[in-house]
Amino acid sequence: MKRTFYLLFLLLPFLLGETRAQTAAIQRVDPTNWWVGLKNPNLQLLVYGPKAGSMTYSIAYPGVKLISAHKAENPDFVFLDLTISATAKPGSFRIIGKNGSTTVSHRYELKPRTPGPKGQGVSSADFIYLIMPDRFANGDPTNDAFPDMLDTKADRSIPHIRHGGDLQGVMDHLDYLQELGVTALWMTPVLVNDESLKKEAPDRMQAGYHGYHFTDHYQIDKRFGGNEGYRKLATVLHQRGLKLVQDAVYNHVSDDHWLYKNQPFKDWFNQWPSYTGSSHKEQALYDPYASATDRKVLLDGWFTPFLPDLNLRNPFLATYLIQHAIWCTELFSLDAWRVDTYKYNDLNFLNRCNQALLTEYPKLHIFGEAWVGNPVAQAFFVKNKIDQPFKSNQPGGLDFVLYDATNAALKEEFGWDSGVNRLYQALTTDALYADPQKLVTFLENHDTDRFLSVIGDDYANYKMGVTWLLTTRGIPSWYYGTEVLMKNTKNPSDAEVRRDFPGGFPGDKENKFTEAGRNKAENDAFNFVKKLANYRKITPALYAGKLMHYVPQYGTYVYFRYDKAKTVLVATNSTNQEIGLETARFAERMAGFSKARNILTDETITDLSRLKIPAKTAVVLELGH
Amino acid sequence: MKRTFYLLFLLLPFLLGETRAQTAAIQRVDPTNWWVGLKNPNLQLLVYGPKAGSMTYSIAYPGVKLISAHKAENPDFVFLDLTISATAKPGSFRIIGKNGSTTVSHRYELKPRTPGPKGQGVSSADFIYLIMPDRFANGDPTNDAFPDMLDTKADRSIPHIRHGGDLQGVMDHLDYLQELGVTALWMTPVLVNDESLKKEAPDRMQAGYHGYHFTDHYQIDKRFGGNEGYRKLATVLHQRGLKLVQDAVYNHVSDDHWLYKNQPFKDWFNQWPSYTGSSHKEQALYDPYASATDRKVLLDGWFTPFLPDLNLRNPFLATYLIQHAIWCTELFSLDAWRVDTYKYNDLNFLNRCNQALLTEYPKLHIFGEAWVGNPVAQAFFVKNKIDQPFKSNQPGGLDFVLYDATNAALKEEFGWDSGVNRLYQALTTDALYADPQKLVTFLENHDTDRFLSVIGDDYANYKMGVTWLLTTRGIPSWYYGTEVLMKNTKNPSDAEVRRDFPGGFPGDKENKFTEAGRNKAENDAFNFVKKLANYRKITPALYAGKLMHYVPQYGTYVYFRYDKAKTVLVATNSTNQEIGLETARFAERMAGFSKARNILTDETITDLSRLKIPAKTAVVLELGH
Repeated sequence: MKRTFYLLFLLLPFLLGETRAQTAAIQRVDPTNWWVGLKNPNLQLLVYGPKAGSMTYSIAYPGVKLISAHKAENPDFVFLDLTISATAKPGSFRIIGKNGSTTVSHRYELKPRTPGPKGQGVSSADFIYLIMPDRFANGDPTNDAFPDMLDTKADRSIPHIRHGGDLQGVMDHLDYLQELGVTALWMTPVLVNDESLKKEAPDRMQAGYHGYHFTDHYQIDKRFGGNEGYRKLATVLHQRGLKLVQDAVYNHVSDDHWLYKNQPFKDWFNQWPSYTGSSHKEQALYDPYASATDRKVLLDGWFTPFLPDLNLRNPFLATYLIQHAIWCTELFSLDAWRVDTYKYNDLNFLNRCNQALLTEYPKLHIFGEAWVGNPVAQAFFVKNKIDQPFKSNQPGGLDFVLYDATNAALKEEFGWDSGVNRLYQALTTDALYADPQKLVTFLENHDTDRFLSVIGDDYANYKMGVTWLLTTRGIPSWYYGTEVLMKNTKNPSDAEVRRDFPGGFPGDKENKFTEAGRNKAENDAFNFVKKLANYRKITPALYAGKLMHYVPQYGTYVYFRYDKAKTVLVATNSTNQEIGLETARFAERMAGFSKARNILTDETITDLSRLKIPAKTAVVLELGH
Repeated sequence: MKRTFYLLFLLLPFLLGETRAQTAAIQRVDPTNWWVGLKNPNLQLLVYGPKAGSMTYSIAYPGVKLISAHKAENPDFVFLDLTISATAKPGSFRIIGKNGSTTVSHRYELKPRTPGPKGQGVSSADFIYLIMPDRFANGDPTNDAFPDMLDTKADRSIPHIRHGGDLQGVMDHLDYLQELGVTALWMTPVLVNDESLKKEAPDRMQAGYHGYHFTDHYQIDKRFGGNEGYRKLATVLHQRGLKLVQDAVYNHVSDDHWLYKNQPFKDWFNQWPSYTGSSHKEQALYDPYASATDRKVLLDGWFTPFLPDLNLRNPFLATYLIQHAIWCTELFSLDAWRVDTYKYNDLNFLNRCNQALLTEYPKLHIFGEAWVGNPVAQAFFVKNKIDQPFKSNQPGGLDFVLYDATNAALKEEFGWDSGVNRLYQALTTDALYADPQKLVTFLENHDTDRFLSVIGDDYANYKMGVTWLLTTRGIPSWYYGTEVLMKNTKNPSDAEVRRDFPGGFPGDKENKFTEAGRNKAENDAFNFVKKLANYRKITPALYAGKLMHYVPQYGTYVYFRYDKAKTVLVATNSTNQEIGLETARFAERMAGFSKARNILTDETITDLSRLKIPAKTAVVLELGH
């Protein structure tokens, strides 16, 4: 009821038409609430309503000071700078605006800090599971579609529109994830994407089912369960010892975003005389020879014609987004942020935003998606060891360099620079990163062809790749369904790699969430991942230990993860022949050990001088005495 | 006569046999002379002769002090530490050794500093021409072969043995080089390579005609003209304003080197229980996960079975090599060093050696051959901006990254990461180097397939590649003969890319050194290089100016070299169609200019808004008002 009223208010300006004089009112204040006790005492409120900019504002609440009001170019907006002292108590106050005889007001709440764990970070001890919530499981069929939204459809027969998956669906399968060894959940964005299906732009048929087309920063999509559902998920996850990663998008919003339809400033978005797409060439940012034009086209060019590019140099917008990141972290008890399209954002904004988050939540992890092709580029976007004019403060990042190398290693024949040499060589450039253990590794994601299809539908390749992911350095992440051998390429469209998890939806004939519902191959894959991930979870040497690897020879690649307590040997034979691997060369790490346990087969090996490794196999051996 | 006597002395131990008691004598002292007035007052003499290690030594000369004598494991060696004060005068003294009633002595000369310019360095203002002296021109047919050498043959009909080219041949063609625009000469090594032709090792048939198999550090090969001929060449070069680059090899020597046959210490060379070749995997040096074993195999493994690997951690050997580098620089008035097989050498030795040279000759340039495949590796071996445990002090290096990129750019179709994008992207990683202008660029060298063959024997590709080489950042170098379209691949052997320069040898039917001797295509190529190189020479904007380049689009790649005085635009159309290039995008560099001169065609362009660029062409335009 309340919600309908609110919506009516929101729609009022459109219903009435812009030219008609409107009754003064505060229709909206963002952030929608705030907290006492945060380290940063400053808060900037975006106040929206007819002629909100022509009012004089006052606030009376102990510990809260209204410092200044900034008019926007659009008279319906004002930005109020507040300070909240360390002594301020939770409670609510009225924001009062006056213009002559007109008075408007808005109740604003300062909550006590959200209870329970948050900002825990994810580390190399974790195993992140990436879900596209619309496609994983539909736990609440009553929230699949709403007639009051721009996009009213949910239809599983159409690849590009909403299928009905939701947060309840995720909650229903946490046992499944924990059995697999998962410790952290990353979902593609859950903020509302309420977009019209614009028939003239066929791409728009997807209408943001994947979540990256925000239309309101302060609403979790009610088709997923809304703010309450998301808060509940966070609580349940933390009760189970699982962590929550949220997916941020700072670069753009949907052209159906309420702040695109109502823009506070002309420069809220990057505008071009005619449509200009981003060059996607991140080189312009670190290249000492780059032109200002190329930097501008990369950063300010639009991602697509229907994703307006936010101008992160507008200080009010920057603060709006940063406060939103804090708001989400606090309210939903987030442990980490994945940042979409990282390389397209103003660099100073990113550093400010990261710093603001890390100031409040020092252990929080942040890992951006900078889809780049070489370690110099990848290092540029994270904390690194290169002395260059711009220094990123991002603690982590998605490791596209290792992703490329892993897939190449599995697809290519062994050679001087190919096959497992790709994997070896990619890791040798880790000297560029401040901490390569903080990079998030992956075999695939929702924007790539699925792993199993990339590697030629070859289960031996699958097991090698999974073994590397779960035993080398970094924070491993996993794309839903690959544990039950979901596959596909992006041909004819992205939706092919975002298919529904079988068993997640009412009426599904198969249920891959259960052992009985999986066929033999699927159970074998599930159990393979489960075994390794759960072994990793209890083996600090494997997730936090040092890495030492050896120059690949004859198609073999050998490395060790080790600490004072334990040494684990991972030996890959990428050739098509069983080999006997002489281990004398690895004495630096193997000296003193006399036997080993094969983690995957539970066999004991009593002669370590020569290891029999089957064709196309990576063995994981825990060394012992 | 004197020389024959000396040789007899050298051969004496072998002639007499090792078991026979030898008459005590100082047969050799290295360095063979030294100078007064160098900044480093220390000098360590290697003294060699029967029982040289059992003598007690004395020196009496004002300003020279014998500080200590170090016995070697081999009793025929002793190392004497001297200091030479700043006040010492040129002259000679006797090194006197006594053992009971036996007295030996050796006259040692301290020369005044070698007159004339030296240590001038090479910079991006230069254009280096690389010659393999045995294959360029035979100016003195009387020195082609000597019966008193191990390798007595010179035969132009056999690819892998000596052909008779020499320093006089180089001197005879300096007009030719200067006409082409060359400003510096780099020859493959000229130190003596007197090797036996070991029939059991077919590879050894080459017996060091290319110069990289040193057998004595203190003799320039007499088949090239000896020490006197080399000194003369240096003088003539400097009189003409040309510079001299020497090619150093610190990693290995020939197994016919006199110090391999007579080793002062057991660890003068890196020894292995059984033959162990280098892994060639330089990653082990900068990789944070490398094993000690892999570093050792890279560094201490041998380059080939007949090139003993020097143990640069032996302090006497290190000093021996460093002093030799100083000795050559001073005596032959060198301006720069190219360092062979740079990545195989002990890193601390390299830094010590570089520093010793730079202390005496602060403007000297040093550029090593670290044949690597990516900028992280390349940066590791030069002064760089990466905070890592080892920091190289090498000012320059051969730019294999740009070499790879240039050839790829010419061979590949334009695409996201291919064609001219390769060239663009390679340069964007320059942020890793302390000074990318100090890298030596090249299209090919004596170890690669020849440029023209690599790029499909395509003259349009040739001109584009040459244009990039002579207009982008760095110090361009050129491999002999490519200006007259010499080509070939290394199939069936390296010798195919090291063919004799036509016209350089007695009896040659063709003479490509002259316009009349070159055909039309060859003259066109020669004149193309000549025009660009000579334009570069007088255009500081082109060699010392800033570089700004633009993200390639539609197969075009555009960059500017500019300083306060001048702006030069280089625009490449790599496609097979003539294009009209809109220049609005380049306003940052083109604003204010209204016309241009095409440097290659001398045409004037009066409308800069749209540039007509023929298919597969790089135009060089000097902008004007």
